[in-house]
Amino acid sequence: ICEHSHRGPVFDAVLDEAVADCRTVGGIPDDYEILFLQGGATLQFGMIPMNFLPEDGVADYPDTGVWTNKAIKEAKAFGTVNVAFDGSACGYDHVPTREELSLSENAAYLHYCSNNTIFGTRFDVPPETAAPLVCDASSEMFARPIDVARHALIYAGAQKNLGPSGVALVIIHREFMSKAVRTPISMLDYARHAKGGSRLNTPPTFGIYMMGLVFKWILAEGGLEAIERRNEAKAKLLYDAIDGSGGFYRGVSRPECRSRMNVTFRLPSEALEKTFVAEAAAEGMDGLKGHRDAGGVRASIYNAFPIAGCERLASFMGEFASKHG
Amino acid sequence: ICEHSHRGPVFDAVLDEAVADCRTVGGIPDDYEILFLQGGATLQFGMIPMNFLPEDGVADYPDTGVWTNKAIKEAKAFGTVNVAFDGSACGYDHVPTREELSLSENAAYLHYCSNNTIFGTRFDVPPETAAPLVCDASSEMFARPIDVARHALIYAGAQKNLGPSGVALVIIHREFMSKAVRTPISMLDYARHAKGGSRLNTPPTFGIYMMGLVFKWILAEGGLEAIERRNEAKAKLLYDAIDGSGGFYRGVSRPECRSRMNVTFRLPSEALEKTFVAEAAAEGMDGLKGHRDAGGVRASIYNAFPIAGCERLASFMGEFASKHG
Repeated sequence: ICEHSHRGPVFDAVLDEAVADCRTVGGIPDDYEILFLQGGATLQFGMIPMNFLPEDGVADYPDTGVWTNKAIKEAKAFGTVNVAFDGSACGYDHVPTREELSLSENAAYLHYCSNNTIFGTRFDVPPETAAPLVCDASSEMFARPIDVARHALIYAGAQKNLGPSGVALVIIHREFMSKAVRTPISMLDYARHAKGGSRLNTPPTFGIYMMGLVFKWILAEGGLEAIERRNEAKAKLLYDAIDGSGGFYRGVSRPECRSRMNVTFRLPSEALEKTFVAEAAAEGMDGLKGHRDAGGVRASIYNAFPIAGCERLASFMGEFASKHG
Repeated sequence: ICEHSHRGPVFDAVLDEAVADCRTVGGIPDDYEILFLQGGATLQFGMIPMNFLPEDGVADYPDTGVWTNKAIKEAKAFGTVNVAFDGSACGYDHVPTREELSLSENAAYLHYCSNNTIFGTRFDVPPETAAPLVCDASSEMFARPIDVARHALIYAGAQKNLGPSGVALVIIHREFMSKAVRTPISMLDYARHAKGGSRLNTPPTFGIYMMGLVFKWILAEGGLEAIERRNEAKAKLLYDAIDGSGGFYRGVSRPECRSRMNVTFRLPSEALEKTFVAEAAAEGMDGLKGHRDAGGVRASIYNAFPIAGCERLASFMGEFASKHG
């Protein structure tokens, strides 16, 4: 696949199938474009306000963690940002309730991050607003069914659930797309990418090929409902281990906002957390150290992570709590 | 490699080695940053003027074909572009001589494309100017030694000579980099990429890994001098077939500007060109049809293309000319 021309018949078929399978997997209506772009979610942080936030306009950005913080910083270069919820006040232990959201009048859009990897929270349902809804779904794309029709734009870097790094999936409503306000650089212009069918220039062919295989895998597994059932079962094993530990483990997220992709928890002391991470690693359970901004322990259990891994970790958590609790 | 964290020890080593080997291959001085970015050369068309062309400034862009045309269009959104040579007047059959270049005073930079894929021309040596020199080397990167020290910035999409699509190699002088005028989007800021060591966000890890393998291959082959000798031999086979055909084949490029990567030629009629391409394809020599903007025949013989392929094509050209000449 790396040696085929990006305009040859082999890659034509790869791209067409990837788009068609993505549409089937996500239940994406026909009035949405499906784009495979470069630059990851981080470039989307800039492209979105460049295209859709007028200089005299305002956009709502609930701040639910490190990634929304980055998105907010980029948007401020283009227009006014209303931080519609300040999660830092509660240590990002939850995403805003309806009452906690302070929305602008006539916002150009509301941008939210549906799953927050570092603190382990998620939006159970999208925030309610009259503004066009823009979702950073990077860390839980295709982990559960999405109500695409409620969104103007959904984007996700590939590397959590979709494929190798270097591709971002963008699902954008055509009418919203037509409202872009400034696009001095062609590679930052959604409409030009759409017109070029994700081939405005040479696309990351290998990444798109791999993503296409992942879409086929999701379909073969039974679609997003089946993927969600498995993710629910995986996360439940770990949250049950937390909740059944008699307080030895404390979940970081409020229960109603618990991420199914990133299970975050604390132990009675930082020393015990260190021991936990080291002993787990010795048993082959790697990468459990929490992000430096959150501390504690984090188990990232994306789509590709097997249920057996969660069973093993839950059992280890039980043993560890008995020994040290 | 696709499953390793982009901040884990395995990828740390991949990235460090790729940078070090790139520096060795290219003889890149220590005061140049080596960056692996996303968005291909097309995003560079926009990033370069965004960073280095002030609104009241001017940049020199000799127009030597389709790709410089695209670069010129992007630059015009940011400042004044002086088209320092208009290749369209001669059907892009050569790149400018020193006398043909009309340079601005105090240009922010001069941008040129060292090899023009579509018309099959190249700069034998970089254009002479007092302005910082910016080179689009996408279609001949590491096909011959480069005088890096004469340049402020050299960039190349990977997919011709360096690796799979989805990575662009950027070599940038640190002092030039520090003169950026505007960078509202972090992913378009060279200095931020440099500070992040090409990991401002998740980089295209697979592409960087593959590029690293290509650098090691170049070193094992004997470096750029050895690669150049092979490329000269390959191109000579085809240009000799053109020049020795008694006028049956006519090279598109003036002899002194002939590309070693893209050998372009015409036949006595378009009908014969069609027959040539079809008969060559029937013998397993694919993709010889010239670009729609140039017509005729084009043999693209990048670094990875074997000398045996050029021998076979040269011999086919001889037979075809005997039959139809």
